Amino acid sequence: MTCEDAADDRSGRAFAPGHVTAFFSAHDHENPARAGSRGGGVTLSDGVTVTVSDVRRTGAGTDASATGSVALNGERVGVEPVARVLADLGVTAEVTAESPLPLGTGFGVSGGLALGTAYAVADAVETGLTENDLVRLAHVAEVVSETGLGDVVAQARGGVPLRVEPGAPGHGRLDGIPARARIEYVTFGELSTEAVLSGDTEQLTRAGEAALDRVREAPTLPTLFAAGRTFAREADLVSPTVAETIEAVSAAGGEATMAMLGRTVVALGDGLSAAGYDATACLTHPAGATLVPSEEASPE
Amino acid sequence: MTCEDAADDRSGRAFAPGHVTAFFSAHDHENPARAGSRGGGVTLSDGVTVTVSDVRRTGAGTDASATGSVALNGERVGVEPVARVLADLGVTAEVTAESPLPLGTGFGVSGGLALGTAYAVADAVETGLTENDLVRLAHVAEVVSETGLGDVVAQARGGVPLRVEPGAPGHGRLDGIPARARIEYVTFGELSTEAVLSGDTEQLTRAGEAALDRVREAPTLPTLFAAGRTFAREADLVSPTVAETIEAVSAAGGEATMAMLGRTVVALGDGLSAAGYDATACLTHPAGATLVPSEEASPE
Repeated sequence: MTCEDAADDRSGRAFAPGHVTAFFSAHDHENPARAGSRGGGVTLSDGVTVTVSDVRRTGAGTDASATGSVALNGERVGVEPVARVLADLGVTAEVTAESPLPLGTGFGVSGGLALGTAYAVADAVETGLTENDLVRLAHVAEVVSETGLGDVVAQARGGVPLRVEPGAPGHGRLDGIPARARIEYVTFGELSTEAVLSGDTEQLTRAGEAALDRVREAPTLPTLFAAGRTFAREADLVSPTVAETIEAVSAAGGEATMAMLGRTVVALGDGLSAAGYDATACLTHPAGATLVPSEEASPE
Repeated sequence: MTCEDAADDRSGRAFAPGHVTAFFSAHDHENPARAGSRGGGVTLSDGVTVTVSDVRRTGAGTDASATGSVALNGERVGVEPVARVLADLGVTAEVTAESPLPLGTGFGVSGGLALGTAYAVADAVETGLTENDLVRLAHVAEVVSETGLGDVVAQARGGVPLRVEPGAPGHGRLDGIPARARIEYVTFGELSTEAVLSGDTEQLTRAGEAALDRVREAPTLPTLFAAGRTFAREADLVSPTVAETIEAVSAAGGEATMAMLGRTVVALGDGLSAAGYDATACLTHPAGATLVPSEEASPE
């Protein structure tokens, strides 16, 4: 480690869009870069902005428990994938994040924190890594932590991503639905990704594969939402409140589905507010995760 | 064709960022979806906005010469890849495009027109195609028209793209440099892509492969620009004016390189203006090509 590497002015910032999965199939693999999910969803302009400061190189393979600390909206939270990302990058850092999205309710906040941290560190110091390398690192951190299977690759892509083959860049394969839209969401609470994925996922995977086939045949947002509803029912993941909300949106002529995995409903356009819900609105996000440029980076 | 399909209110809009290739190697293949280039460059926030109106279905495989017409910044231009894209989509359309970038000078305007047209048609009518399908169609149109080999896939990705393997989605493979920056550019005129690529490309390809290896080892913008300068010299493509401009930027402490293929110089930050040139400024573009949402698509 040189004196320069230990300087405490090494900071960086990145944004990762939120991501709601409408349907998925789980694909286990002994190599976590090949494990993941197939499925479809929407990325959201509401996302996670991660700032890293006081970045110090410690050498690769540092014990994950010893690196970094995360403040999300001013509150200390433990996010295992973030610690893993820092350890794999061989740095310690002060990690601060801001997000309007609640953690643990199906918006890909843990994935966004992992990916945003990887990109923010690359903004702060030369890592020698490409974007695919950083995405792979964040994906592996999520898979190993059992906090998610497909958010990271979707959040790295942006738009309305279809995970055609599971896994990190070099293994997985992505496509997208050519669409942009206003999205509304409402949350009723958490659903443990780990608990669902550690159960029997055979029926879920069959339903997820069927949903993906259907959407690839007719790649539009209404098809995505309809396929999501069928999937949620077949995979038996819908709580009564979520079911009632989705039905209310349908009754008002809208399109809604459940976020995998959270007690969360997302709707196209003004579907939730038209059905009388107090929903938050955002847009599908056109870009994947990106560095947030410093003030000087302006064309003026 | 149904009455609905023939309605003349079918319009759509899309944006494709500009793209400047810093170095490349050409890879021919009898299947144009597998042909393409490996290389690296930057996408630009200055790009091409394509509007299609009066979109009418004619059935797939329509003669390319019979479809569409392109008005670029109010002037009629013949852009063969656009006609091919419309023919492959089985539609005719009025195509209008706006761009601050000059055609034929290394900014990927023809690729942006092809890709923007494909996305805009998908915005106007249901094509049954995914984003990868649309990118493949635009890439093939460029390759067959001999107007470009790698712009379309780079413009579909955005950021600072590395074309790791040549070809359209499903064949090619992309990565990226984790960076965002201000970019300046100045143009001295055209260079025919077709003339360069129809010559002996063996030395060019060797130089391009070496440049890509170098940048993948150290994926940063300064490395990309330095590799571009070495490539341009080794491939013997630099005109005296371009060489003089790049040297002037280097002498002023900046980083510049030549756009492949045009008599165009791009620089990092304020490299050109600091060297006394009257340059245009923009930013690297964080997103790939996207639909441009209509006014209603706002979260408010």
